[in-house]
Amino acid sequence: MKRRFEIEKELDAGFVVEARTGHRWFRDQFRVLYADTDKAGVVYHANYLKYFEIGRAGLIRANGRSYKEIEELGRFHPIVDLRVQLESYADYDDVLAVYARPLSIAPVKFSYEYVIRDDDESKLIAHGHTVHCCIDDHHKVLPVDPVTEQIFADFGLSRR
Amino acid sequence: MKRRFEIEKELDAGFVVEARTGHRWFRDQFRVLYADTDKAGVVYHANYLKYFEIGRAGLIRANGRSYKEIEELGRFHPIVDLRVQLESYADYDDVLAVYARPLSIAPVKFSYEYVIRDDDESKLIAHGHTVHCCIDDHHKVLPVDPVTEQIFADFGLSRR
Amino acid sequence: MKRRFEIEKELDAGFVVEARTGHRWFRDQFRVLYADTDKAGVVYHANYLKYFEIGRAGLIRANGRSYKEIEELGRFHPIVDLRVQLESYADYDDVLAVYARPLSIAPVKFSYEYVIRDDDESKLIAHGHTVHCCIDDHHKVLPVDPVTEQIFADFGLSRR
Amino acid sequence: MKRRFEIEKELDAGFVVEARTGHRWFRDQFRVLYADTDKAGVVYHANYLKYFEIGRAGLIRANGRSYKEIEELGRFHPIVDLRVQLESYADYDDVLAVYARPLSIAPVKFSYEYVIRDDDESKLIAHGHTVHCCIDDHHKVLPVDPVTEQIFADFGLSRR
Repeated sequence: MKRRFEIEKELDAGFVVEARTGHRWFRDQFRVLYADTDKAGVVYHANYLKYFEIGRAGLIRANGRSYKEIEELGRFHPIVDLRVQLESYADYDDVLAVYARPLSIAPVKFSYEYVIRDDDESKLIAHGHTVHCCIDDHHKVLPVDPVTEQIFADFGLSRR
Repeated sequence: MKRRFEIEKELDAGFVVEARTGHRWFRDQFRVLYADTDKAGVVYHANYLKYFEIGRAGLIRANGRSYKEIEELGRFHPIVDLRVQLESYADYDDVLAVYARPLSIAPVKFSYEYVIRDDDESKLIAHGHTVHCCIDDHHKVLPVDPVTEQIFADFGLSRR
Repeated sequence: MKRRFEIEKELDAGFVVEARTGHRWFRDQFRVLYADTDKAGVVYHANYLKYFEIGRAGLIRANGRSYKEIEELGRFHPIVDLRVQLESYADYDDVLAVYARPLSIAPVKFSYEYVIRDDDESKLIAHGHTVHCCIDDHHKVLPVDPVTEQIFADFGLSRR
Repeated sequence: MKRRFEIEKELDAGFVVEARTGHRWFRDQFRVLYADTDKAGVVYHANYLKYFEIGRAGLIRANGRSYKEIEELGRFHPIVDLRVQLESYADYDDVLAVYARPLSIAPVKFSYEYVIRDDDESKLIAHGHTVHCCIDDHHKVLPVDPVTEQIFADFGLSRR
């Protein structure tokens, strides 16, 4: 069964509320580059992960921090698992919206969920998630950093 | 629990047999470009999907056909679902091996499985799968094309 | 000798006037993705061509047309020559400005010039140009299409 | 006038001699990925710079060193100027050859030249060059490193 995704209302700072679930999402927009397309005339699947990155970075920034700042504090968030489900396709020059929200947090892992949509037509293009761990610059796995913990806490998610 | 991946023996035409499962895989090798890395000094996660593409195209070619030929016959294989699990990381200039095999086939869907490994150290870097449907050039979903069906049949997989 | 690039004043619709030359440029902004960086920690050189594309597409759009529309009219603008000069480097998460303007037009060729700058610091990062020809969907070279001719004419450039 | 490029003879270790000029070039081959194409059905122009990277890295390796090793010695070779001229286009799944050779060396700059060709048809696809400087990990410009100097010397080029 296809995922549905409807926006109920818009909040400040780029946040919106999803109708069915009540989830709060960060939203940003971008335009599909020719560089992102492939010979099938649509966005090459791997590029949705770049769009997810736009959403993830924007979500952290909308919470008053930045991933760059997290790295400057000596913590890195490599992806350990990712999934992309494609419901439709996106064309060159389309203006798309990416939605991102914290999904879950555990002592050494946390994940974000994403939706890519053509907002003009309320058309769902893709959705998925990325699971991250937190490491230092020697690739040592550490507990999730306080900046990230706080962002997830703002969404009612704790690592207990 | 981490996935294990050991090769039992090498066959002709780039094929190998996995020890634990007896699965037959196609294997190809490639070198990590500087262009594939990111500021963490390792391969950017989205690029594993390009490595999966190398394995998938090579697998079809090792069966005597090519994805280009499938498109010339008017069929396209867009990805509708994909997953990448990262067990370790790959560095610039590493020579990696990609392994690919048909995973499953249904009337309107089929999937490939992949493993990325540093063969020198028997180190597993990443694994995952892609799920495809079969469409014509008007984006109409069709039954899986006979070329693909035959490749999957050679691996003992039928769409029944 | 390094290129200088100073803005004298801002016009409507994203256009600005360069101080030294009086040239009119289209300006857009974008943020450097992690995906754009390489293991040297800066933007991988090939990605400046994607930033040039952002400027070129925006310039056409600011003139009331779009490159997508040109393709729908059956004309394509492949690049036949390109140059990028890098004066400095750009970091992850930097907000950069791309400036683009029509540079020259001949019966079967036309070119755009670009500047990439960190506007906050008036720091020039890169500049360059792309030379295009105009073809139909059979790769036949044709005279420059009327849409493009009009855009260049608006900048005082004719193919005579 | 279009560039001509004919091979006179093959040497060891991937090197060939160009007919008209007597220049010695390193040659490597690669296959065009779907990820490299765009909606025009051909290789997106920026990707030629990745193919140039394949040639440049292979050239250094064929001389018994590697760019990775140069970086481990604390020297980096950022591109400060680059040009790509496109004579034809490359399709998905084409097997292309990249040719690379040292072009010139000065106290603080050096350059490589490249040719991309479809060897089956002796068809020239693209050619160009990249100009590099040599920096340390604090972005300080330094004289060209001895490893690079030696490679250029092997091609009869010195920085005097």
